[in-house]
Formats: sequence, structure tokens, C-alpha cells
Amino acid sequence: MAYFDQIPTVKYEGIQSNNPYAFKYYNPTENIGGKTMEEWLRFSIAYWHTFTGDGVDPFGAGTMVRPWDHLKGMDLAKARVEAAFEFFEKMQVPYFCFHDVDVAPEGNTLKETFDNQDQIVAMIKDYMKDSRTKLLWNTVNMFTHPRFTHGAATSNNADVFAFAAAKVKKGLEVGKELGAENYVFWGGREGYETLLNTDMKFELDNLGRFFHMAVDYAKEIGFDGQFLIEPKPKEPTKHQYDFDVASGLAFLKTYGLDEYFKFNIEANHATLAGHTFEHELHYARANGLLGSVDANQGDLLLGWDTDEFPTDLYSTTLAMYEILKNGGLGSGGLNFDAKLRRGSMDDEDLFHAHIAGMDSFAVGLKVAHNLLEDRVLEDIIEDRYSSYSDGIGKEIVEGNTDFKQLYEYALNHDQIENKSNHVELIRAKINQYLLTAFA
Amino acid sequence: MAYFDQIPTVKYEGIQSNNPYAFKYYNPTENIGGKTMEEWLRFSIAYWHTFTGDGVDPFGAGTMVRPWDHLKGMDLAKARVEAAFEFFEKMQVPYFCFHDVDVAPEGNTLKETFDNQDQIVAMIKDYMKDSRTKLLWNTVNMFTHPRFTHGAATSNNADVFAFAAAKVKKGLEVGKELGAENYVFWGGREGYETLLNTDMKFELDNLGRFFHMAVDYAKEIGFDGQFLIEPKPKEPTKHQYDFDVASGLAFLKTYGLDEYFKFNIEANHATLAGHTFEHELHYARANGLLGSVDANQGDLLLGWDTDEFPTDLYSTTLAMYEILKNGGLGSGGLNFDAKLRRGSMDDEDLFHAHIAGMDSFAVGLKVAHNLLEDRVLEDIIEDRYSSYSDGIGKEIVEGNTDFKQLYEYALNHDQIENKSNHVELIRAKINQYLLTAFA
Amino acid sequence: MAYFDQIPTVKYEGIQSNNPYAFKYYNPTENIGGKTMEEWLRFSIAYWHTFTGDGVDPFGAGTMVRPWDHLKGMDLAKARVEAAFEFFEKMQVPYFCFHDVDVAPEGNTLKETFDNQDQIVAMIKDYMKDSRTKLLWNTVNMFTHPRFTHGAATSNNADVFAFAAAKVKKGLEVGKELGAENYVFWGGREGYETLLNTDMKFELDNLGRFFHMAVDYAKEIGFDGQFLIEPKPKEPTKHQYDFDVASGLAFLKTYGLDEYFKFNIEANHATLAGHTFEHELHYARANGLLGSVDANQGDLLLGWDTDEFPTDLYSTTLAMYEILKNGGLGSGGLNFDAKLRRGSMDDEDLFHAHIAGMDSFAVGLKVAHNLLEDRVLEDIIEDRYSSYSDGIGKEIVEGNTDFKQLYEYALNHDQIENKSNHVELIRAKINQYLLTAFA
Amino acid sequence: MAYFDQIPTVKYEGIQSNNPYAFKYYNPTENIGGKTMEEWLRFSIAYWHTFTGDGVDPFGAGTMVRPWDHLKGMDLAKARVEAAFEFFEKMQVPYFCFHDVDVAPEGNTLKETFDNQDQIVAMIKDYMKDSRTKLLWNTVNMFTHPRFTHGAATSNNADVFAFAAAKVKKGLEVGKELGAENYVFWGGREGYETLLNTDMKFELDNLGRFFHMAVDYAKEIGFDGQFLIEPKPKEPTKHQYDFDVASGLAFLKTYGLDEYFKFNIEANHATLAGHTFEHELHYARANGLLGSVDANQGDLLLGWDTDEFPTDLYSTTLAMYEILKNGGLGSGGLNFDAKLRRGSMDDEDLFHAHIAGMDSFAVGLKVAHNLLEDRVLEDIIEDRYSSYSDGIGKEIVEGNTDFKQLYEYALNHDQIENKSNHVELIRAKINQYLLTAFA
Repeated sequence: MAYFDQIPTVKYEGIQSNNPYAFKYYNPTENIGGKTMEEWLRFSIAYWHTFTGDGVDPFGAGTMVRPWDHLKGMDLAKARVEAAFEFFEKMQVPYFCFHDVDVAPEGNTLKETFDNQDQIVAMIKDYMKDSRTKLLWNTVNMFTHPRFTHGAATSNNADVFAFAAAKVKKGLEVGKELGAENYVFWGGREGYETLLNTDMKFELDNLGRFFHMAVDYAKEIGFDGQFLIEPKPKEPTKHQYDFDVASGLAFLKTYGLDEYFKFNIEANHATLAGHTFEHELHYARANGLLGSVDANQGDLLLGWDTDEFPTDLYSTTLAMYEILKNGGLGSGGLNFDAKLRRGSMDDEDLFHAHIAGMDSFAVGLKVAHNLLEDRVLEDIIEDRYSSYSDGIGKEIVEGNTDFKQLYEYALNHDQIENKSNHVELIRAKINQYLLTAFA
Repeated sequence: MAYFDQIPTVKYEGIQSNNPYAFKYYNPTENIGGKTMEEWLRFSIAYWHTFTGDGVDPFGAGTMVRPWDHLKGMDLAKARVEAAFEFFEKMQVPYFCFHDVDVAPEGNTLKETFDNQDQIVAMIKDYMKDSRTKLLWNTVNMFTHPRFTHGAATSNNADVFAFAAAKVKKGLEVGKELGAENYVFWGGREGYETLLNTDMKFELDNLGRFFHMAVDYAKEIGFDGQFLIEPKPKEPTKHQYDFDVASGLAFLKTYGLDEYFKFNIEANHATLAGHTFEHELHYARANGLLGSVDANQGDLLLGWDTDEFPTDLYSTTLAMYEILKNGGLGSGGLNFDAKLRRGSMDDEDLFHAHIAGMDSFAVGLKVAHNLLEDRVLEDIIEDRYSSYSDGIGKEIVEGNTDFKQLYEYALNHDQIENKSNHVELIRAKINQYLLTAFA
Repeated sequence: MAYFDQIPTVKYEGIQSNNPYAFKYYNPTENIGGKTMEEWLRFSIAYWHTFTGDGVDPFGAGTMVRPWDHLKGMDLAKARVEAAFEFFEKMQVPYFCFHDVDVAPEGNTLKETFDNQDQIVAMIKDYMKDSRTKLLWNTVNMFTHPRFTHGAATSNNADVFAFAAAKVKKGLEVGKELGAENYVFWGGREGYETLLNTDMKFELDNLGRFFHMAVDYAKEIGFDGQFLIEPKPKEPTKHQYDFDVASGLAFLKTYGLDEYFKFNIEANHATLAGHTFEHELHYARANGLLGSVDANQGDLLLGWDTDEFPTDLYSTTLAMYEILKNGGLGSGGLNFDAKLRRGSMDDEDLFHAHIAGMDSFAVGLKVAHNLLEDRVLEDIIEDRYSSYSDGIGKEIVEGNTDFKQLYEYALNHDQIENKSNHVELIRAKINQYLLTAFA
Repeated sequence: MAYFDQIPTVKYEGIQSNNPYAFKYYNPTENIGGKTMEEWLRFSIAYWHTFTGDGVDPFGAGTMVRPWDHLKGMDLAKARVEAAFEFFEKMQVPYFCFHDVDVAPEGNTLKETFDNQDQIVAMIKDYMKDSRTKLLWNTVNMFTHPRFTHGAATSNNADVFAFAAAKVKKGLEVGKELGAENYVFWGGREGYETLLNTDMKFELDNLGRFFHMAVDYAKEIGFDGQFLIEPKPKEPTKHQYDFDVASGLAFLKTYGLDEYFKFNIEANHATLAGHTFEHELHYARANGLLGSVDANQGDLLLGWDTDEFPTDLYSTTLAMYEILKNGGLGSGGLNFDAKLRRGSMDDEDLFHAHIAGMDSFAVGLKVAHNLLEDRVLEDIIEDRYSSYSDGIGKEIVEGNTDFKQLYEYALNHDQIENKSNHVELIRAKINQYLLTAFA
């Protein structure tokens, strides 16, 4: 069965194209510094937004009716798999991602839930045989069902901890079965509503235990995907423990987990935490922990997660700059954790939006690559820190000095001249690279 | 010479007092759970706001003219010391804090600067002999002078690193000389303006080196005050590396510094980072790193550091609750890093404002103590987490289980009942404790 | 049938009571400055949160299962009416509020929808005969159904405008039928998602037309309730036209509607717009447009509408201060547009939360009344502006001067002395009034 | 004397230029839809940031030392005039703007202050004779001096009101003398610190009186520049009365001033108020009140006015789109109310930054013009609202219908179909126009 008959397979046509079903900048096979665009970008479709999302918001019912929406239960789940692989093919994407409940409905018992999953996972595996699209990562949803109201691994209810453990165990098995390259934890309910009834230490200790058990089980079954933590500061919780990459890192180090985890960084989560997207990428990179990316964008004048498709070329450029500096994303990718605006309710908008997002990151890749090729920022940075290349600066970075020696040095070098940052000039240069990238 | 002749020594008169120069709730010698109010609260005056601040803001000149402001240079510095100790005595506070440049003017050379400091430090030491007021902590200002434009320990200019080292070396010596119980680092310029010219890893490595040198030098000279990091997310920098306690902790662990440092938590810095004051206190406490407090409050509808005197009794109550749970602040204290509103330009406002702040924390102490005495929140928390006291919960916290066992358990316990949090009822209870604390 | 058998009728027991089903401060018949507490406060229950809300959030399913939730369609609607009047009686509240869709389900056609409403409205009217609880206001929901995706009166689709008109026409008739004292417009979808496809002038013109038609129709049928606009800056829309009271006022004046409308001010909407709750009340009062209040509170560190039950006594005090200065709310009231936290899922939490809210406003009333009785702020303000009572100040306020005369005056009075605001002292005074209100 | 000897006159060289002292997109004489770039853009230099600013921030001293900074008093003022006209010429800008205190120092008396101004104004007038640079607007500073601590026209001190009147009287005379095309009011202190001591109605009434006197005096002396209000929500005040354009409009209408004033819209002020820059422009345009622009940009993750030079091409494009739709800015212009980052301390950064800003608006002009030429958004909007072109929609906009007729219509048209907004597709189209504008 075909759900998107009316839509052609999306191909690259170049910047002047007026075809709304063509890529204008994303040319999958184009070589950029030794890899193809496809290899650098590793795009992934988020199953939840694209095949189960309906445009609902806190003040309004769903607006989107998909061709499979007349079905129910397992029939609906199967139709979505069909639609998904049709979509993957038309969009030519190398990856997809899902939560357990996106692909298969929950049953009345946990066993029934797992049985449902088994059926659908088998079906997905079958589809994957004939598809070029692989599983970037899977995860399990531990936030929607009321049982997770007070948390999952950090719930005050030990039965919920056990339930969560069972879900993740199954998730790791599914990941192994489908060849997932990563496994993601987003702790949407791992936090608190109010400190008045919360023992944070107890909850964090439990979270640490939970992650260690996950690591142990992955080893046991030979699942070798990369574990990823996805930080978000808040929403739905008042405070989420994985507020940002830094707080996630503090947690990992405190519980001896830093060698097993990297981070899945979402643009809109970064901004909700008061950081730019590129800050979170840079910070993770600086700590060797940049794992994967949830590619979307937020609205900085709104205080909630809008999960918009990424179209801001500054943001995609600076993100790709960090990713290029990281040598790519390794087993990670750019997953469009993005949803259509509620008023974009047509099926065709799914295509428009993904094309917009993929093209935007392709632009970002090209601009960032050009900047790197020309060492625009590299030269600025090299020059800027050059005082550490010799003299007292060299002593400092090599660890050959101390406060007493520096004190003597400073007494003799106390009339300090700083150089200008020329920030405005650098910003103009970025604009020039953007405007000429496709000229 | 007396600067505050017209103001009487401030004493406790009780809640019904209409004397604007009396404490209404702060009764220093009152016993609260085995310590006096004074011992719990360990109030401290911030030299910079109180003796050098003039009400300037980014759009306006100073509005406050103090009786010592006709003086200049070292004469002004000496007059401020006199005024300070007069103020300390009238307010009966046990502690004060200062930056190097608050107490002594910079000279034309670093040597002259240190000479100025030596004179004033000697004078302060002399005054301290006859005073009950001790030095809670000192620090050095590494943010005001243009030399610190690009950072101090994280500057791209090695000469600035050296200069900063010389200042901290001197600061540690001064701390030792005056018996400081702590030494604080606030990295107001340790961060970045833009990532476009920044090598974060290089800068953080240098910051790590700097702190290690400070630790080494403190050991060498036998300074045994507690090192404290004061997080702030931004302002004046676009991004400050010590964004919040969590990011500070990640840094300390990454650089092997976590055994040497605790945190100095400022209420207004917490809220600028998107956290409540009590969150930062609780998080630090949970990690054994609650060192000291900069007691002020922000305006959550304004996006900058307003450094208001703390008068919100919810905030002081929840802060004191954390401090009581911590067994007090150890060598730390409650330092009023707070400034008069620009329109409160009279000398007497210095007294009004500190009285308001001290009284507000005294109320907080009393309410928090009553809550603890009656185990209001303790019982809620104990009951809430009780599922971990036996059965599968006990297995979890004792580390005796794994995903396979939990999986089996969950399959047999999948119809989960959660209990209500009754958050609204708890909040009403807090109000009741507040309203009856002095009834 | 009784849904809340286990809950007693809530009565006043005083501040020392430990009965969670008693008022501790709200004593309905207590006289405060010539009116009873009940008359000042005019509490109202929000039908939607209390009888249809289930704890759903953007990342989670409903957590609350009410005793009537096994029913469906009109049976469910009728059961809710029964439950509502039982609740009103147990809580002794004088008012309630509802949207059309809260009380009766939508049918397959608009006619069926109206027929459903007619049945339920008749039932409500019947219940009201034996109840002391009256209808503070009603409104119609023009935001949940997908037809309102692009707006209601500001939709780009004329059929939607017509549909909205039909709904409001019916709403006014229902309001008249049930004796509603006000009619509220909250324009949750009256705004835009992006300016890229929006003609704001066209949409605002239509909104003006719509409101004029509503005014005309109310006159025609003799509905004399007060029209109210409820501002909110955003959520669910990117930008809502009634951003705050000021923008609402600009709109009303532009379209000649200011004599027909007042404002329904919601605390959490105020803070989302960057204002304090009391600012919006004060601004509306200063313009003679303070109509009614949606009594709740937000979390200033979260960027969305949390609709929490109001328990912050500073906020209730400053709100009641404005309301007392306004001589009360006229036909308006304090409507608890507030929902239980998702984790407060028990039926009894509905009682706890409303008691908490009512008690908090009772405290606010008492503290504000005491402040007014003692002219605490009045004297400060009178003194503060006293320079306008005579001399050049009197000339200014009486309109007897001009720039030339003021220029001459200023040349001779250019050494200006301002007086201190003593803000910190005032805040301490507010605390003192709060802590002694029930002592 | 020449201050910028080392800098050449800045000329247009095109997008491929690597000359940091050349325009890459701003070609003053290039024709865009019937006007030159220079005529559309009407760039203006802000005297305060460029000739008096020194890089000071709330935590740091000035970092910028200009070649004229060794001078003092009137000598300094005169040197700045020389430097300014040299800068204007090198940058080829048609306009500049200033506050009274930017150009001449305050004296010990008001008379002395005015005498100082008179000297400098005469000097400026002289310079203007030989310059192509005209005065876009002037204003007087009523926020820096301590006398304005509690406001200017809204001060509680009548002497301050008079002083402010004298300053504005002089400002209008100076504006007339120098041929200013507008006169701006930014009410940086016209607001409140706390409502606890504020009578908002009284203050707003005074502000209304003040503006009427200004209007009257302008008429009297024949000053025919456009009066402009510059909204800002806060900073330095807790709340500024001209929060945004909407609140400014409400004020103007309430006090019968709307025919005399338009708005000067600043990008960074818009975002501090929770609006996009283009929102404020669009709203003002829709109300016929778009007067002039303070061209800068803020950092949406920072909560204060950063006044950065505008380089975000989305922002400049959407701004220029509104300005083109408005038929230009009339007597207004694009004034760079922008300051160098503190670390950009070289004189040459003044050039780099203005070139970056001018180029960015030139790009915006070109992209916006192309969008308009191709009716990209016009066609979308025309189609989107087409249901109002005939049938019931036409009846609505022509005022020929009422609720009863619409009710009947709706009963027969209740199965509503909405069309998709295709927002993601539109955003991709904007990117395409941006990337091809200079290709």
C-alpha cells in the first residue's frame, strides 16, 4: 500500500529549483572534504513526530489526519511501519529513531506490550532488509504513561523503577535486534515537581544504579551501541536532573559512568537551558562526549519546547562547525526531533519540512566547511592564544610554574596590553561566507 | 571619628516593634535547636556594596554620597575601614567579606597596589583586635580592570594569567593574615563573549591549572580556609564557565579539584541560571559541597543581577531549611552580597536594608526549624520513598538486583498505583508555619 | 448521587487547625472594613480544571480518574453537573465559571452541539435554584477544536469567523439564561504563528467587528453582564493580540470598544507577559478597567502557563491591596483558573487545593486591609508626591504652566534634592504586617 | 586635526571583497525599486556609543581609549565633534543622532549647561554646512544624572518635572537650529522601581501633560520634526511605562496624543519585551505609527540590553520587509544605537562594526525587495485571506452582517476545512531568497 503516492522521490536539483519536492542544497553524494554530504550529516527521521504526531498542543486537539488514522491498535501500528519505510525511501534518509510506544501500542499487561513490540520489531526488521535506512537509535518512553508521574528510575515508587528496568531491558534487546547504533535516555520525568517532597540524593543514587544496570545488561547481551543521555532542563518536570550537558557530566562523573555515555544534544533543549545550541555541542566536544544530535530549533521568545524544523542557517552553520571539528558524529547522526507547526496539517508538509531541515543542514555543512578550509576562525584562535606558545605562557601550559614565579613575573609585567577581539568583523565574515556559499 | 552618629546600636525588640533600627525577629542569643541564632546565621557584611557602592547603574550615575566620599585615595580607603568597623559594631555582625580593590586603591604598578593593600590590611587587623567581627572570606577582583577584559585565568593573554596569579597569591596571604575562614573565586570574566574566537578546552585547562596552583600555594603558606567557587551563569560575560553548581562540579571533577573546593551560592545567581535558590543549596548539599551563601534576592522578571536585600520569607525559609539539613554552614556564612536600590540613597538605608535582610533570615531560620522539629517534610519524604525500605525496593538500593530480575518482577507487578503528592496541601502547610512562627 | 461522600463540608476553624478540610483564615462571614470576607473575595470555581481536567501535560497522559469518568457523552456531562454542585456546596463558594464545551459535549453538527448545551444548561439552571452558587461568567471555547487552528474571529477563514459568531451568540444567550454577571473573551488563538503569512491589521479589524457584533447582540437580548477581555501574551499562539492589559487597552481604544469592556486578569498570564500580577491589576485599576480576576500563580522560572493554585501570600496580599483600592471587583470575582499538579491526583486534592487558594486570598485580604487601615503605603505615597500639592507642582497638575515658565523656574531651582525611597524598609514593613496578621 | 588618518574612506567593493574597510553589499547609489539604497536605509550614527562610549559594563571599567580622551570638558566636547564629522565623512552616512549630554558637558548650573550646549551646537552647525550628514534626531538625556533617580516627567519631585521641561525646551530649540527631522523621547526612568510607593495614574497623567507641553512648544517655535516615543520594557527601571509599542499606543490614545507621535523602534528593546523586532515594526505600521528605527540587535539568551551591531540577516530582512511595506521610514532612519563589544576596543572596530551593520541592512533590503518583487509573501497572504473576498466573508468585512445572520450561516456551514499554513515551506523559501540575493 502506498500512502504518499502523490509525492515524488525527493532529489537534488540545486539552489535555483522551484520544485518544492527537491533538495536545493543537500546533494547526498557531493564530496565535502573527503566524505559525502550523506556521510557527514547522517540524517534521521523521528518516528514519533512524523508518524504518530497529530498537531495537538496544550490548548488544542490534533489537526493532522493521516491516511492511516482510520486504523486502530496493531493495524495502525503496522500501517505506520509501511508509511514510514515509504517515507524513508522517498526522502532517501539513512536513519530513523523511535521510542517503543511509537511503533507498537501498549497492551493491558506488560507482557502484552512486549508481545506487541515483538511483532512490530519483526516487521521493521523485515522492512529494513530491503531498505537503505538503518536505526540510528531507539529508546523507551518512560514519561507518557501515568505510572511515570513521579519519575521512572527516580520514582519514589520501587515498582516503577522495576517497570522502567524491564522496559529498558527490552529496549536494549530491540536495539540489538535491529542493529541500533546508539541507545538514548531522555529523562523527561527524572527530576522533581517540588523540592518540598524530594530527596535528590536518593533519586540520583537510584538513577546511577539504573544506568549501571543498563551498561551491565548491554554488555551481557553484546549490544554495542553508544549510550547517550539527552539533557533538557525542564518541561514537563519543573527541574530535570540532566539540565544540560554540564550537569549531565557532573552526574556521570559522580557515578563513575562517564566512560559509558555520551550526549545526544537537542537544539531546543540547549536554548531552554540558557545556552546556544553550539555551546552545548562545543562543551560536549571539549569533553570528548559529543555523541549525537536532535536537530530542531526553538523560539527563543517562547519558554517551551517548540521542536521546530531547523531552518536557521546561523544555527546549522555553527552546529556543523562543531561537528566538523569533532571529525563527525561517529555513530551519532542528525535526528529531526521536530514537528510540523500545528497549522501545517497536510501530509505534504511532512516532506516540505524535512526538506527544509535537510537543506538547512546542508547549507550549514558547506559554510562551515568553507570556513574551516580557509581557516577563518582557526587563524583567529591560533593568533589569539599565541602568548601561550612561548615564554611564561608556555611555562603555564606545560605546568612548569607556580604562583611564586608568576608573582615575580607579574611584578615586572604589570602594564598589560590586550588585543581587540574584533567580534563585529568576525560576524561580518560569517555573513560573507553564508552569502557566497552557493554563489 | 564617627560616621553613623545618628544611628543607635541595633538591638532585638521583637515583632511588635516600630523602631526602624531594631531587629524584630533576629535575636542573636536566642537558642534554636542547640545553637544561637547568631551561630546558625553567621551574618556577614559585603564591603563592596556597603562601603564603596554608590547606586550607579548602566544608565545612571551614582546617587549615594557617603560622609567619607570627600576623601580620596588612601585617605578614602582608611576612612572606609573606620566606617566599616563602626557599622559592624552597630549592626553586631560576626563577619565581613571583601575584594582586594574594595579596601585599597590600585596603584600605578602592581607593587604599589600591593603596598597599598599592606597598609590597609594592617589597619584592618588592628581594628579586628578590638572587634568581634571576623573575616568570613576575602577574594581578589579579577573583572573590573580592563586588563581582565578577555578573562583572568582563562584570558588568552598569558601576562593576564600571571597577573591574576600574583593577585590570588597576595589574596591568600591577606586571608591568612586576617584569619579568613574561606577564600572565594567568582569568575566574572572566566567565560566567553563568543565561541567564534574561543577554545573552551584550552581555557578550562588553564583554569584547572590556576586552581591547582592556588591549592598548592595555600598549603605552602598554611592557609587553611575553605576554597569556594561562586557560580553565575552570565553577566558580565555572555557565558560564564561556572554557570551553576552542577557545571562547577563537572569542572572540579574533570580537573581533580573536588576535594579542595566547595560552593558559595548566591540566590540571584541561582535564578539567573534558571534554578531556585534552594535548588542550588540542595544540589550542593546532596554532593557534600555546600560551603557558604551570598544572601540576596533577584527579581525573576528582570534578566540581570539585581542583588536586592533578601526579604522574601519563602526564599529565606527554604534556604534555612537546606542549611539546617546541612548541619549549618561550617566555615561559611550568610554574606549580604546585596545593594541598596538606587533610590534608597540615605546612609540610614544601609541600616534598614541590613536589618530587613537579617530579620528575614531569622524568620526563615525559625520557620525552617519548626518544620524540622515537627518533621513536616521529613515524614512526607520518609513515607513517600518507603517502597525502597523492603522488598524489591530494598534490593534496588542495596545493589542486589539487575535488569533480568527486575524484568521478572515487573511482569508480575505491572498494574502500578502511585500515590498523590498532595503538593497544594504541603504548600498550605508551609504558609501555616510561616504565619504562626511568631504568633 | 454523591461523589464526595468522604469529604465533609468545609468550615472555618482558625489558624491553629490541623484539619485538612477546614479553612484556617477564610471566614466567610467575618467583617473586613464593612463587607464580609465572602463579599470581598467572591470566589469562583473553574469548571474546566476541576470537573473535566485530568492532569494531562504535553508529555504525559492524564493521571486523575474521577468517580464520574466511567460515563460518556451526555451522561458524563450530567454527572459532572451533579458533582459540581456537590463540590460548590461543600466548599461554600458563591460562584462558578465555565466554557460551553466544559459542560456539554460537542455534537456532530453545530445544531447538535447547541441542543446538548440546552439540555445541560436547563439542568444547571435547575440546580442553581437550590444552590447559593451563581454564575460569575461563562465563555465559549474557541481554541481547542481544529477548526480554530488559524484563529476564531481572527481566522483567515470566513467560515470560522461565522462559526465563532454563532458560538458567542449562543454563549450570550446562555449567560443571560443563567444570570451570568460577566462574559469573558480569552483569545487563545487570536494571534499569529508567524508574521510571514499574517496581515495583522486585517485580523485586528475583524476582531473589532466581532466584538462590536457581540456588544450589539448583548444589547438586543438584554444581557447586561460585563464584557471582559482576558489578556495572555502567548501560548498556544506564538503571539496573542491581547498580550497584556496595555495592548488590550490600545486595541479597545482603536476600535471604539473601551466603554464596553473591562479586563479579566490572570496572575500567570501577567507573569508570562513580563509583568507582576499586581502590575496588571494596578494598570487596569488606573484606567478604570479592572473587571475580574483569574486567581492562580505561575512559576517564574518556567516559561509556560502552569496555572497553579495560588499560595504565595505576597502575591495574594498585593492583589487584594489593588482590589481593595478599587473598592472591590464589582461584578467580577476571584475565579480559580488553577489546576492540580499532575502528581496530585486524588479527589481530595481538589479540596486541599481550593482551600489553600481561598485561605491564601483570605490572608491577602486581611494583610492588605490592615495596611490600608494603617495607611502604611498611603502615607508614604502622599508624602512622596507632596511636591505637587503647592507651588510649581500644583501649577503643573492643574495645567497652569508651560515649558517657558518651567524653564525659568528650573534655571532658578537647578540644585535638586531627591528623597530616599526607603524601599527596603517598606518591604520589611510588609513582612511585619504579614507575620502579625493572625497573631 | 584628523583622528582616523589610518582609515580610508569606506567604499562599495562588492561581495567578494576582502577589504575590511569596504562595503560588500551596501552600494549607496544602487537603485532598488525606484530609490537608492541610501534613500531607503537612511543610516545614522549614534553619537553616544561611537564618540563617548568606552566599553564600560556593570562589572568593569572602560576598555576603549580614543585619541581624544586625553582632553577634558569643552575641549573634549569639541574634539569629539571634529572626530564625529571625520567619521561621518569616512563612512558616508547621511545622518547622526545625539543626546544633549553626548555633545556638551553639564555645567554646575543649568544655565552653564545650556551655555556649553550653545557653543557646541554652533560648532556642529558650522560643520554641517560642509557636510552631507544631517541630524536625524536629537533628544535630551533624562536618566543619567541622579536628579532623575525617581523619573523625569514622572518624578515624584515637581522640581525634576520642571528641570526636565527646561531640558526638552532646549532640546526642541536645538533640534530646530540643526534641522533635526525628528525628536525622540526614551523614558528610561519613566516607570517605577516598586508599586509599593507608586501612584501610576498620577505619574501617567503628568507624562501626558509633559508631552502636550512639548507639542505646544514645538508648534510655538515652528519645530516641525516628528515626535517619536522609543519603547523599552525595563532596564534601568523595573517597569518602564512605554513597555512596547502597544502600551505606548494605549498611552497616546488615553491622553489624546496619538496624532502627534510615532514610534522609534529598537530591535533589542522589542526582544526584551518578548516581541520580535519585526513584530514591533509590523504593529506600528498596522497602526500608521512607524516612525524610525534604532538598528541594533540583542542576545535572546541574555536578559539585558546588549545593543549589539546588527548582523543577523534574518532580522534585517524582516525589518526591511516591514519598512518597504511602509513605503520607507518617512522622516525616520536606521540609527545604529549599537555599541562595540567590550573586547573590541580598537578605533578601527568602530569602522568594522558600522560597516557590518550597514552591510547587513543592505542585504536585508535586497532580500526583502526581491521577496516583494516576486510577491512571495503577498501571494500567500492574498490567497490565505481570500475567503473574505466574497460571500459571507465579504459581508463580514463590509459590516453587513450580525450575529444572527452569522448564526444561521454557521448552522449550515459547520463542517469546516482549514488550509495548511505550510510555514516550513515558507521558511525554506526565505532561505532561498537569502542565499541567492547576491549570487
